Amino acid sequence: MLDEAIAQKLDIEKFSSTPNTFCIADVGCSVGPNTFIAMQNILEAVGRKYESKALASELPEFQVFFNDHAMNDFNTLFTTLPPEKHYFAAGVPGSFHGRLFPKSSLHVVHASYALHWLSKVPEEVQDKDSPAWNKGRIYYTRASDEVANAYAAQFAKDMDNFLNFRATEIVVGGMMLLVMTVIQDGFHRSQSAGGFLYDELGSSLMDMAHEGLINEALIDTFNLPVYTTTMNEMARLVERNGYFNIERMKLTDPILNVEGPADMQMCTMHIRAAVEGVLTKHFGSEIIDELFTRFYQKAAKYPLIESKYKKGNLLFLALKRK
Amino acid sequence: MLDEAIAQKLDIEKFSSTPNTFCIADVGCSVGPNTFIAMQNILEAVGRKYESKALASELPEFQVFFNDHAMNDFNTLFTTLPPEKHYFAAGVPGSFHGRLFPKSSLHVVHASYALHWLSKVPEEVQDKDSPAWNKGRIYYTRASDEVANAYAAQFAKDMDNFLNFRATEIVVGGMMLLVMTVIQDGFHRSQSAGGFLYDELGSSLMDMAHEGLINEALIDTFNLPVYTTTMNEMARLVERNGYFNIERMKLTDPILNVEGPADMQMCTMHIRAAVEGVLTKHFGSEIIDELFTRFYQKAAKYPLIESKYKKGNLLFLALKRK
Repeated sequence: MLDEAIAQKLDIEKFSSTPNTFCIADVGCSVGPNTFIAMQNILEAVGRKYESKALASELPEFQVFFNDHAMNDFNTLFTTLPPEKHYFAAGVPGSFHGRLFPKSSLHVVHASYALHWLSKVPEEVQDKDSPAWNKGRIYYTRASDEVANAYAAQFAKDMDNFLNFRATEIVVGGMMLLVMTVIQDGFHRSQSAGGFLYDELGSSLMDMAHEGLINEALIDTFNLPVYTTTMNEMARLVERNGYFNIERMKLTDPILNVEGPADMQMCTMHIRAAVEGVLTKHFGSEIIDELFTRFYQKAAKYPLIESKYKKGNLLFLALKRK
Repeated sequence: MLDEAIAQKLDIEKFSSTPNTFCIADVGCSVGPNTFIAMQNILEAVGRKYESKALASELPEFQVFFNDHAMNDFNTLFTTLPPEKHYFAAGVPGSFHGRLFPKSSLHVVHASYALHWLSKVPEEVQDKDSPAWNKGRIYYTRASDEVANAYAAQFAKDMDNFLNFRATEIVVGGMMLLVMTVIQDGFHRSQSAGGFLYDELGSSLMDMAHEGLINEALIDTFNLPVYTTTMNEMARLVERNGYFNIERMKLTDPILNVEGPADMQMCTMHIRAAVEGVLTKHFGSEIIDELFTRFYQKAAKYPLIESKYKKGNLLFLALKRK
């Protein structure tokens, strides 16, 4: 889909000047190797585009910016860069919820499994006096509509900022290629894979609180800054923002086999890798092993119900800067 | 000197187009904080230049590229970036003895205490059959002229490559600001501060070999890939290369008080920080503590003779891309 979007929609001849350097950024790239594969794919697709336009002699040099927050392990990223890469590599520390690059300096921006991270937990859900107070839970999917609305509002605000910042950084005609986990329109929010698993994580924390292993008040002041959108919601947000045209929008299945049973040990490791940082910061590191042992037991139910959650839950979105 | 060189010699109005983004690179930057201070100085000097030309309204955005080899601790660099910085930061992993940046993408390149690192040990000094074989030593300063010439030839080759690569990466009119430890012309190579200290390090290794703690053959196959040039030698190499004009060339004293006695514990730590990596790779980590204990004792003589070595041993060089 990425190849096709670049082949059909990237108007390289319309860039204000044929670029000397073609700049690609992967925002929220983590440590690799997925980011290396994605960047290589984009680079090759852009190269073919230049060739197809008989611009091969003008093939620019490529510079690839690997972005993630400053606590990301850039040392690992840099020491495992592919030795045969045909681009100049740079790491850019900082949140994609803020400005990261100079004005009009990028031609393609990629973000994969990244945009579900909110810039922060919506304030109301941790405010005792708000109807959106999320007592006894750490996530919105099984919570009241007030809580879910607060999450949705935060996502809308974050996405608008994200699109504004990237619109500043991407040249006119440049593209943004986004891969996101979504929930299919029509499903209830509690029926997302992430929702199910994060709810079980919250439920494991509450079990520990009932046994006196965690102070329950600590759970009331903790919520995961993660939101799962839908295809229609994303389309509305992009259109309302106004800086990008939607060139491609397609739901697909995750790469892993959606029919076979999930490997719950692997799944537990993934969830732990994703959220251990924020959990440790709030609850301390002592509870983590016990928490994920309990989570693993609860999540064992998941393979029985997972396939309906996973099918069609991956959104590919190709946007072009107006 | 850096401020002055930028104020008097950087022709911002002659850049092919007023840059949207002003790009600065620090090559061989290590982990900070020195690099942050240097970059801030350059950024402010360039800002004043724009103001002095009444171009303040066109003040570009700044992007700063922090470069060092891929094993550098970029995680520390990124997490200690100044919170109030007025530039977009990026880390670039790789040796400055190779290409690092796209063509004509940089306006100012800075390198401080970095260019004494050779790309490799000259091959002859580790070749038993060569007249330049450096048996029983790890450095060239007290060695034969053949050894010293092999080091000088490697430096000349490396510097020519360095200037060629940077000439490709720097825009016409862009500047290179270099700070280097040198030995004053007229002094013998053994009279450099680095030479004295590295020779004592080699001598400590030989003592350990004589006591059976190290295999002497291991010492014969190890040499430090470091060279101390002179001001005249640098000027000749820059002129022979031909891509840069020398705008400023000045010897100065290191920042530390050159008259007072050196803190040899600090000095030992500095030397260890600089060369522990290459030593460990060759000799293993077991010998390191013992080696530097012995070195510290030998180097105790150093404060008695140091001031004549240190005075005027810092070269500031401002080059402009033709």
